[in-house]
Amino acid sequence: MALLYTPGVAEPCREITLRREAVYEYTGKGNLVAVISDGTAVLGLGDIGPEAGLPVMEGKALLFKEFAGIDAVPLVLGTKDPAIIISTIKALAPSFGGINLEDISAPRCFEIEKALQEALDIPVFHDDQHGTAIVVLAALTNAAKKVGKEFSTLKTVVNGAGAAGTAITRLLLAAGLSDVTVCDREGILNAGDSKLNSAMAELASVTNPRGLSGDLATALAGADVFIGVSAPGALTGDHVKSMAPGAVIFAMANPDPEIRPAEAKAAGAALVATGRSDFPNQINNVLAFPGVFRGALAVRARRVTQPMKLAAARAIAALAGTGPEGPDAIVPSAFHRELVFQVALAVASAALADGVADRKLDRSLLVQTIQEGLIEAGAHRTLRTRHHLAQAGGASRRIQERIGEGLVRIGFLTQEQSDEILVLQASGDKRLFGEIALALGFLDFDTLIDYLRRPGGSA
Amino acid sequence: MALLYTPGVAEPCREITLRREAVYEYTGKGNLVAVISDGTAVLGLGDIGPEAGLPVMEGKALLFKEFAGIDAVPLVLGTKDPAIIISTIKALAPSFGGINLEDISAPRCFEIEKALQEALDIPVFHDDQHGTAIVVLAALTNAAKKVGKEFSTLKTVVNGAGAAGTAITRLLLAAGLSDVTVCDREGILNAGDSKLNSAMAELASVTNPRGLSGDLATALAGADVFIGVSAPGALTGDHVKSMAPGAVIFAMANPDPEIRPAEAKAAGAALVATGRSDFPNQINNVLAFPGVFRGALAVRARRVTQPMKLAAARAIAALAGTGPEGPDAIVPSAFHRELVFQVALAVASAALADGVADRKLDRSLLVQTIQEGLIEAGAHRTLRTRHHLAQAGGASRRIQERIGEGLVRIGFLTQEQSDEILVLQASGDKRLFGEIALALGFLDFDTLIDYLRRPGGSA
Repeated sequence: MALLYTPGVAEPCREITLRREAVYEYTGKGNLVAVISDGTAVLGLGDIGPEAGLPVMEGKALLFKEFAGIDAVPLVLGTKDPAIIISTIKALAPSFGGINLEDISAPRCFEIEKALQEALDIPVFHDDQHGTAIVVLAALTNAAKKVGKEFSTLKTVVNGAGAAGTAITRLLLAAGLSDVTVCDREGILNAGDSKLNSAMAELASVTNPRGLSGDLATALAGADVFIGVSAPGALTGDHVKSMAPGAVIFAMANPDPEIRPAEAKAAGAALVATGRSDFPNQINNVLAFPGVFRGALAVRARRVTQPMKLAAARAIAALAGTGPEGPDAIVPSAFHRELVFQVALAVASAALADGVADRKLDRSLLVQTIQEGLIEAGAHRTLRTRHHLAQAGGASRRIQERIGEGLVRIGFLTQEQSDEILVLQASGDKRLFGEIALALGFLDFDTLIDYLRRPGGSA
Repeated sequence: MALLYTPGVAEPCREITLRREAVYEYTGKGNLVAVISDGTAVLGLGDIGPEAGLPVMEGKALLFKEFAGIDAVPLVLGTKDPAIIISTIKALAPSFGGINLEDISAPRCFEIEKALQEALDIPVFHDDQHGTAIVVLAALTNAAKKVGKEFSTLKTVVNGAGAAGTAITRLLLAAGLSDVTVCDREGILNAGDSKLNSAMAELASVTNPRGLSGDLATALAGADVFIGVSAPGALTGDHVKSMAPGAVIFAMANPDPEIRPAEAKAAGAALVATGRSDFPNQINNVLAFPGVFRGALAVRARRVTQPMKLAAARAIAALAGTGPEGPDAIVPSAFHRELVFQVALAVASAALADGVADRKLDRSLLVQTIQEGLIEAGAHRTLRTRHHLAQAGGASRRIQERIGEGLVRIGFLTQEQSDEILVLQASGDKRLFGEIALALGFLDFDTLIDYLRRPGGSA
């Protein structure tokens, strides 16, 4: 055993002691991201605590591996105290190449991310904020073209002033919009409102240039764009009718959007996007974070700057309509073959230009580094990574027992069990089989839809 | 994507919200251990910092997987402040089934472990303390039989009052020894010495029953056992000559022992063990920790109690001489087929008896649970886990470049690269090839020794 472990392992230790960057050569740090949550804002479920948030972080870790070839460790924290969260993540940082914050409630998330990014020399990226903002910017860039309007002139209303709404607003402003109005449940955010928390007051100070006050309806009258990160039903047909011709609606509340696409279209919307995969134009941060991290890790970026986010959005926008999503789409499919590579290349190049990259690579080495990093990515071929297959054991049987209730636990299935699931195909429940097959990567979404539309079965 | 990730993943979240134990069914928590260090006491290198300690934690994580089928996450902390280390690990605990503390300097390690174990309901195990103590107890149990002395009467001197020395002493006392004397660089620990720190004062108060004072030579006169966790050369032939007939020497300083086995034997020692794999009777905590954690996780033990440690030592002792280590050995080989299973079974049974197990299993279910947990263990077939193969990428090529310097970086090799290493066999450097082949699991130790003894090559 001494030969296996010591003294052989002492050599890299000594070398890292002498030259700290050697940790990137001798350990997995450079390809390892922590997916960290305190469980306070999980999906639509809210503050459900760390244990209950863990399945989401495990799923996210799988997506990192499958889409970007990045090893990710799901970590949930047993504290809601921002000071402890900050000191914990600071202490953990030497192990990781990047930190992906996830499902942390606003406004705490702003303070936490800011303090960490100031303290650390690795990227700290709150995906609920910036992943969403990047994809929204990409989609809105293309939407402006589709409706024949100049991007910078778009009168835009953002409904929801939480993590996503705030980051979307800031990125849209950075990208050149000048007329953005933010609403929350109380109505339009006003710079003069003394009841706003400091994050909202800051947001109010850079938005609402026409000094509007009132409710969402006031904000929407004559607006070009509605961006909803709020709640089901928040947008009505009458709201849409009051907007300018060629209205663009991003209704991203999940799982039920602010307005159903059909209703928005009936009220005159020119273009509708949602957060759901069963409508066209799904706005999902899986379009952004794999490439953002792949690119940032490739050049050892110390942070993800605004120019890197803008570059990611441009790369995503440029691919829309060139892949399986079809020519009318304003965002590419998550399974677009070029997506992660192009986003990573754009982000890494922007990091180099922005002076935040610790590893200077010329274009050809950069391309090679990103391509090598993506070798382990499985794209949509399978969501069962080696690592997670290794974890299957006991937990996976549990899933099998619960399949009758339609519960899909992603990735934690052994090969044998996956084979058993195929037997479901013969059971007659096409929709359940289809969902599971999609989750396991046996089908992509278009194939699933075709399959469900074919006669036979319960779908 | 929504189907892949949301809303499907919301179901386990909701269920864990209602019933927190469900986290063990729906996530990897129950088979996941954090290997955590602050880099303050790494191997013989001392306080080298978190980044430089990371290769050791990665190696340890590999051993967890390979010997026990346990997924382990290597984490190094960028702080030496015990309060921050404690709050960090407390915050992380919801993600893990157990915490393995590693290479944290004494006396800080005692405070950290105690505070964490009091706060958490998962096992917190400082392996440098308890892993070592368990294996020493197992070895000493068998050594007493070999030299024909009653275990409880052994006059024992422990040289070194750090993490390992303290834990060894406490476990030997718990196992029935009554005459243990502890020495550090200053000589014999005395209850009356006001200069001792609180951990040492506590230790002094339960040891040295004859009230000795003086140096190591004073302590050793007439002693039956020397246990060294100190420094190369700390024990001389004259020391050994002054001991009682049938002296037992555990010289565990690494990589160079307190005394060379040949010198100890020449001075009259009846039995010598070291921490090295190239002498007989290697005392290495890999004999203990895989089974201890496998057993504790199987029954969701809330801590590792003294009875669990004693049970582990008994299980290890019982296997010595029945495996590849040969009949004269006082400890089994790390590659003994039954080792991890028997230790796990003993530890889990003791946890159940001790009332610290949250999951009550009858004997047959317990055996089945442990066996299932070990399915993913590779034992000595290979040290290259799926997970770590997945990480190979860029880092592994670096190793290839350094093989000429004899540097063995464990596990981080792709299959192609492993194959290339076999080519080394033809290069004539038998010892280097043998070391690498052993590290990669192509050979076990006995086969390696046979191989090196055969004519030809440089060994």
